[in-house]
Amino acid sequence: MPELRRDPIIGRWVIIATERAKRPSDFSFAQEPGAKKEKKPPSECPFCEGNESMTLPEIYALRNKTSKPNAPGWEVRVIPSISPFLDVKGDLDRHGKGMYDLMNGIGAHEIIIPTPKHDERTFIADLPQLEKLTGVIIKRMQELKKDTRFKYALFFKNHGRPAGGGKTKHQHTQLIATPVTPKRVKEELVGAKSYFDYKDRCIFCDMIRQELSDKKRVFLEIDNFLAINPYCSRFPFETWILPKKHSCDFDTMNERDIKAYSKIFQFTLKKLTNTLGDFPYNIILHTAPFRRRKKKGYWETIEEDYHWHVEIMPRLTQVAGFEWGSGFYINSVPPEDACKYLKETNGI
Amino acid sequence: MPELRRDPIIGRWVIIATERAKRPSDFSFAQEPGAKKEKKPPSECPFCEGNESMTLPEIYALRNKTSKPNAPGWEVRVIPSISPFLDVKGDLDRHGKGMYDLMNGIGAHEIIIPTPKHDERTFIADLPQLEKLTGVIIKRMQELKKDTRFKYALFFKNHGRPAGGGKTKHQHTQLIATPVTPKRVKEELVGAKSYFDYKDRCIFCDMIRQELSDKKRVFLEIDNFLAINPYCSRFPFETWILPKKHSCDFDTMNERDIKAYSKIFQFTLKKLTNTLGDFPYNIILHTAPFRRRKKKGYWETIEEDYHWHVEIMPRLTQVAGFEWGSGFYINSVPPEDACKYLKETNGI
Repeated sequence: MPELRRDPIIGRWVIIATERAKRPSDFSFAQEPGAKKEKKPPSECPFCEGNESMTLPEIYALRNKTSKPNAPGWEVRVIPSISPFLDVKGDLDRHGKGMYDLMNGIGAHEIIIPTPKHDERTFIADLPQLEKLTGVIIKRMQELKKDTRFKYALFFKNHGRPAGGGKTKHQHTQLIATPVTPKRVKEELVGAKSYFDYKDRCIFCDMIRQELSDKKRVFLEIDNFLAINPYCSRFPFETWILPKKHSCDFDTMNERDIKAYSKIFQFTLKKLTNTLGDFPYNIILHTAPFRRRKKKGYWETIEEDYHWHVEIMPRLTQVAGFEWGSGFYINSVPPEDACKYLKETNGI
Repeated sequence: MPELRRDPIIGRWVIIATERAKRPSDFSFAQEPGAKKEKKPPSECPFCEGNESMTLPEIYALRNKTSKPNAPGWEVRVIPSISPFLDVKGDLDRHGKGMYDLMNGIGAHEIIIPTPKHDERTFIADLPQLEKLTGVIIKRMQELKKDTRFKYALFFKNHGRPAGGGKTKHQHTQLIATPVTPKRVKEELVGAKSYFDYKDRCIFCDMIRQELSDKKRVFLEIDNFLAINPYCSRFPFETWILPKKHSCDFDTMNERDIKAYSKIFQFTLKKLTNTLGDFPYNIILHTAPFRRRKKKGYWETIEEDYHWHVEIMPRLTQVAGFEWGSGFYINSVPPEDACKYLKETNGI
């Protein structure tokens, strides 16, 4: 009989198909991420070193000291999106239209290019480069936080066409700052807060404790971090990376944290790639909304009750009518099975 | 500048790309729903008349009085899914595992076959048949409601591969009864209730009033029903069908309602198909959870504050990391534009 599991944080139910569980080789996307053949040669790739003039002027770049902005000599480069979801210029304007509420689409939409090389797969191939990328994400988040129009910054990467990834082969990631705290983030915050109010403990910390004692869904532990297939996985091989030590903000990591996080992140992606092939995925960073000091020296809360983490969601199956209508997910690979597969493989 | 619109019911924000709005012909799925070529000939189709023995024994069928169950002579047939998400046998068993909650996967998963003919596209081609289908859905819902293990029944149809539709060409729809009220349904109920508590009016009724007066997003009105592109459409050409008269339960429609509903439903799909081609879509019925008479003669509430409707979600674009992480949707066709296109076309 299938098992219904309830996500303890936001109360979402997942149907885990325990009996007809699938194996990694059952997924047709496994060996083909479905990205259309790229038409452009590297000489026309706007993300390549030497082609800096093909993009909008850079926002920031980690570059050697002798090089100039918008010129070669960089390692990680941040540029504005050429087709931004939200517009960075202007003041917030909220109003109503009859019973409806709207505001103008103020926000920031930045593209972070993790490598100057066209064919490099930084996420699984180059650890020092990945550490630099992590540093740049943190830097950009700290910068965006200063803009009082923004409430949240969402870092993500789409890979492969079924995950909404584009046709450009050159690796890139995205950072979007929004003028409201997004609904999904709010749901997590509310769930975590309600648990904290009741138990005086962080729900994520409790989850980590239980996972470390259950030993069924943790497949990697490096320094202060662990990688798990969560109890209530919505997707086959869904994977979370969490710091064991309580922390609500991604951008408070120190040098040592950055090294350990980059290492577990890379090893996790290697294990997943070794198990599933060049699979399509979304990677989403879940971190606390921006908090600002209030007049009398208080900070807005969310210090103790939230816990940052990264969610890696392989997109091996279609989300269809039942999931859309109900918010129930159907997962054909129990996380305990996924964990076994991932434990057994050693990465590429 | 893009516009941020807030869904008044559940508080979800949508980014409406007003400036670089797309046209129907811009969607690559428009002319190819992406369903893989069907391999089976009709002679091997388990949903065809004459092949009744290829399915599990039928649950119900609308058939002529001289015909026998599981034999030819039917018009609409209901069978158990051969690969059910949930298992119909057994008692509910809820328990905890440490901090996690789970229950066994009790539920019903029924396939409703709207036509005995292999090539018939009932939803756009055969109005009397569609009325019969509507009657059968109502009948099954009323039946499932009697099973006290179930809290909700979700009716839906997936069409085309990007919408999670299968390879079987023979039309079919699904009805799933769940032992808990699904999260998405709860969100709508909570949102509608909170509005009702504040205003003493149904939020959907208010929305209908505003749409009828705005005249920008209503493209069809037939008898007691209207078809709109909602103000806060998540997807290009998202369409809702609602009864103008307040009603929380789909299964309380009378004969006249069924006729008018089937007519507007068919005309809506014809207009969408004429505009977008054979497009991939999910159709999801949103109706109130099952209510039962309590001991002292009271009913559980949700009479005044919920309003059933049908959501048609064309799947022309990919949902990617930003949507998954934030719950924000990005819609490249303002509903006002979609409405213009749909008003202009007359159906097939």
